[in-house]
Amino acid sequence: MILCADTTPFSWQAALDAAGILLPAAAPPAAAYTPVVVHEGLAFVSGQLPRDETGVTTVGRVGEEVTLEEAQAGARLALVRGLAALRDGLGGIDRLDRILKMTVFVSSGPDFVEQSAVADGASTLLFELLGLERGRHARSAVGVAKLPRNAAVEIELIASVKPASSF
Amino acid sequence: MILCADTTPFSWQAALDAAGILLPAAAPPAAAYTPVVVHEGLAFVSGQLPRDETGVTTVGRVGEEVTLEEAQAGARLALVRGLAALRDGLGGIDRLDRILKMTVFVSSGPDFVEQSAVADGASTLLFELLGLERGRHARSAVGVAKLPRNAAVEIELIASVKPASSF
Amino acid sequence: MILCADTTPFSWQAALDAAGILLPAAAPPAAAYTPVVVHEGLAFVSGQLPRDETGVTTVGRVGEEVTLEEAQAGARLALVRGLAALRDGLGGIDRLDRILKMTVFVSSGPDFVEQSAVADGASTLLFELLGLERGRHARSAVGVAKLPRNAAVEIELIASVKPASSF
Repeated sequence: MILCADTTPFSWQAALDAAGILLPAAAPPAAAYTPVVVHEGLAFVSGQLPRDETGVTTVGRVGEEVTLEEAQAGARLALVRGLAALRDGLGGIDRLDRILKMTVFVSSGPDFVEQSAVADGASTLLFELLGLERGRHARSAVGVAKLPRNAAVEIELIASVKPASSF
Repeated sequence: MILCADTTPFSWQAALDAAGILLPAAAPPAAAYTPVVVHEGLAFVSGQLPRDETGVTTVGRVGEEVTLEEAQAGARLALVRGLAALRDGLGGIDRLDRILKMTVFVSSGPDFVEQSAVADGASTLLFELLGLERGRHARSAVGVAKLPRNAAVEIELIASVKPASSF
Repeated sequence: MILCADTTPFSWQAALDAAGILLPAAAPPAAAYTPVVVHEGLAFVSGQLPRDETGVTTVGRVGEEVTLEEAQAGARLALVRGLAALRDGLGGIDRLDRILKMTVFVSSGPDFVEQSAVADGASTLLFELLGLERGRHARSAVGVAKLPRNAAVEIELIASVKPASSF
């Protein structure tokens, strides 16, 4: 009997490397909350904004000051920050198993109804990194009035974590 | 000793049949995410809109283009779609245990504050199907600026799943 | 070998007493949902408004009718109500382990972008009660169009529950 599965175990770090994505450095600790909390194999990730070392990169309401394409790039960046938070919170990106649920809040002008397309900017990155099967995740996209620091998009995550023994 | 409990185990399918609710056919697969993700007995259900085979049925902001009654019917329909997604994702509606948490996003006009009443349209269906004890669920209702496809309501769910051995 | 840990086990009740916080009486049962649902060590807490026996205390949009300071006090009160709901739902506040995730919805005027500062009103209370380590929690803060009963803030929680045997 030949076992074919699991001979090349998935590595988040290898997938990020292959995609040319360098996770940013650890964010400065937040004043009043923590980026990632782990409980019994679930990781809860605080709302992530699209930001780099200069601050929030995508500012304003989508459909007004922000285009769909800019918002999609912002969603992708917010997810990258969420992955960086998971790396820091878990002690290594390869302790991350899967992204189970993604909630995408989109700061929306009065006539903007393409919140799902904005969220695709993040979902697509997961499939790029993980492929169609492992990249599967549940998702909600909603249009909100305003986000912290006037960000165009905010993403929160629930992820599964590998047991220490399998790592 | 006579055991009275569990002699007529609860069946979601029987409850749906008794209520005259036919779950819709499987939705076409979404491009960039998956309707239901299961992890360790929890099912995360992506945001569900009120839609039928013709598209989104309840469009616009509640308190403006949409009445409370229309929004309640929309919430009920969105929940039915969530149950259909669970049936498809779990391989049968009777693998579903309970709805633990429901988040109801209501596209709200500037003066509309009856988001809880909108959400009751979905909560009431759970109690119709499951009774007062098994139908118990936690819930949040919030008024948002705009929803995908201009839907009036969007519902996401966290559910518990029966272990395979009990099914 | 001397074991120093766990000799003075943490008590939520003692921490609340030390902070001079009296959890309010049980809320009247909601019509169509339940304040707290527990499943496998996780407690899902329904959206909580800032309210006392007279009704919702903090009404309107932050940045318009409501100041930041009022909204922070409202967030703190909504969290206190969430703790009271947990006490009632768990059969005692000391069955509560930790707050894992807090979602803070802030009814926001068109130019208000300090949702994180509003949420700090609740986060700060957790650290007052629990200290810097045990008070750690993930958090999202978003600005929404309108909340039920025109509340300025609504907070939902996911908490961990102690196993009965440890209680």
